[in-house]
Amino acid sequence: MVAKILASLTAVLTLVAAQPVFAQDLLPSWNDTAARSRIIDFVKATVTEGGAGYVAREDRIAVFDNDGTLWCEQPYYIQLGFMLDRVKTLAPQHPEWKTKEPFKSILDDDLKGIARGGEMGVVELGMATHAGMTTDEFNRIVSDWFSAAKHPKTGRLYTDMTYLPMRELLDYLRANDFTTYIVSGGGVEFMRPVMEKLYGIPPQQVVGSTIVTQYALVGEVPVLKRLPKVDFVDDGPGKPAGINKFIGRKPIFAAGNSDGDYEMLRWTTAANGPGFAMIVHHTDGDREYAYDRQSSIGKLDTALDEAERRNWLVVDMKNDWKTIFAFEP
Amino acid sequence: MVAKILASLTAVLTLVAAQPVFAQDLLPSWNDTAARSRIIDFVKATVTEGGAGYVAREDRIAVFDNDGTLWCEQPYYIQLGFMLDRVKTLAPQHPEWKTKEPFKSILDDDLKGIARGGEMGVVELGMATHAGMTTDEFNRIVSDWFSAAKHPKTGRLYTDMTYLPMRELLDYLRANDFTTYIVSGGGVEFMRPVMEKLYGIPPQQVVGSTIVTQYALVGEVPVLKRLPKVDFVDDGPGKPAGINKFIGRKPIFAAGNSDGDYEMLRWTTAANGPGFAMIVHHTDGDREYAYDRQSSIGKLDTALDEAERRNWLVVDMKNDWKTIFAFEP
Repeated sequence: MVAKILASLTAVLTLVAAQPVFAQDLLPSWNDTAARSRIIDFVKATVTEGGAGYVAREDRIAVFDNDGTLWCEQPYYIQLGFMLDRVKTLAPQHPEWKTKEPFKSILDDDLKGIARGGEMGVVELGMATHAGMTTDEFNRIVSDWFSAAKHPKTGRLYTDMTYLPMRELLDYLRANDFTTYIVSGGGVEFMRPVMEKLYGIPPQQVVGSTIVTQYALVGEVPVLKRLPKVDFVDDGPGKPAGINKFIGRKPIFAAGNSDGDYEMLRWTTAANGPGFAMIVHHTDGDREYAYDRQSSIGKLDTALDEAERRNWLVVDMKNDWKTIFAFEP
Repeated sequence: MVAKILASLTAVLTLVAAQPVFAQDLLPSWNDTAARSRIIDFVKATVTEGGAGYVAREDRIAVFDNDGTLWCEQPYYIQLGFMLDRVKTLAPQHPEWKTKEPFKSILDDDLKGIARGGEMGVVELGMATHAGMTTDEFNRIVSDWFSAAKHPKTGRLYTDMTYLPMRELLDYLRANDFTTYIVSGGGVEFMRPVMEKLYGIPPQQVVGSTIVTQYALVGEVPVLKRLPKVDFVDDGPGKPAGINKFIGRKPIFAAGNSDGDYEMLRWTTAANGPGFAMIVHHTDGDREYAYDRQSSIGKLDTALDEAERRNWLVVDMKNDWKTIFAFEP
């Protein structure tokens, strides 16, 4: 008993000693610019009891887009990278793919040919690579892929392509009793196997697009089969719907990087009371990629106009971030 | 600083002093029967580090059906009670309901007439009472209704119709670092406004049936409109699918009371490793209701047969529960 008390007391003393966090220790990969200050000011206000900006712990919900907000989405979405590799893996079982689009273009390494297939091509590609197995099998396939698959430009593991300043931001929010969620157009079951390791976000806090699953018995064993049918698209106006469906509370903090996040940012800042919206603006062509209004991936146009009008924070990756990737020299 | 340390130390001492919980303090509304022992044995095993039944905190997921498992579902589902009242409230705006089923029967207080309408009648009824407003408006309507609506037999508020032993069980599991979820056929947005107050379960841990919502602007204000279209039915084989979609982890503990929970109980006990399934068997016609295989509401037939075969715990409400409702004399 006494040992227990002493151990607990030590823990408490350590905690108390660690309390005064100096400004320069917060978000160390961020430069000391207005962007960083605005984030810190908002968080401080939400945790200051009695203050006008105070928010109860249970309402400190923070939502983050994933592609282009937490990890790199260029030269193509990481999930598309998965699809391309998967087609090549499965090709021997599908001789018909040699002449059938979009599979033919993938097997020929012709990315433009895939793009010519348009939306229908991508849906067909998604279903061919994401359906037809159980949820457990898909989890294993995705986990295995992430353990080895590499980014086409940097040659780093995809799992190394996360933005260090954003991971620090997630930690900082959680240290202030925010609950952090992913709200992404990506597939829920594509993301879940790695989100906890990458961002400290557990499966139940990953909101994304879903396909229909069906309960079935394989012998005596119940499984869920992934059917080739879209259930829910968590993008654009689907993001507030997804937040409402999965979380059931309005966020007070939202981060995105493209027009696909626009409605989520509106939703977050429309509530009575505190609401903070931020956009990660890809301005660093040297360390990462520079793109916005004209990009086919992560197009940022309407939301960029609206950001100014609505006083949303636009983070300039080049100037606001000291480091982008942890692997930088 | 010193005051802070002292306050923390006091908190720690209180915690330590409170540690030894004696068996008779656990689940006080349960009789000292085998049912109670089996639950306690399972929970103790999951938290015993190094033991064969140990489960890491993040995997201690417990799922609970709601109707008939946590609160009373007789003589009809509480959500049906809401629909009936809602039709009466809205009737002046719908003169056509006077001659149109299932509305006519409701306005005539003819419950059998509603039943004659079958499943389509119930869907139409659901849409007429659950759609056509924003999510915020629906939340208010539901909250207002729960503040006054009463159970037709006991005359108590519906919110008093929860089972005290089950609330103790939820508390007990949470005290052992389980995360508790509702997984119900009921509407998510019908349940969420009251689940936290009744069971300590926050909105993001309520899984249920959903209707399609649509993002829209009302002037400058973003809202979600509830459309008269079913999105997902979280019942029967839909329950494992709902668990996978919303939670993304397999539960290790599941409680239900009807055949609609059968697949969830199978799913929970099929995983490699620990899995506990229990069925609340309605055996007390005096204090509550007695029903199982022949009941149109909460039919328990297949799952009761399977319970024996699979060694699921069947809780006998009459003999295993000292108290059912907190309001009992």
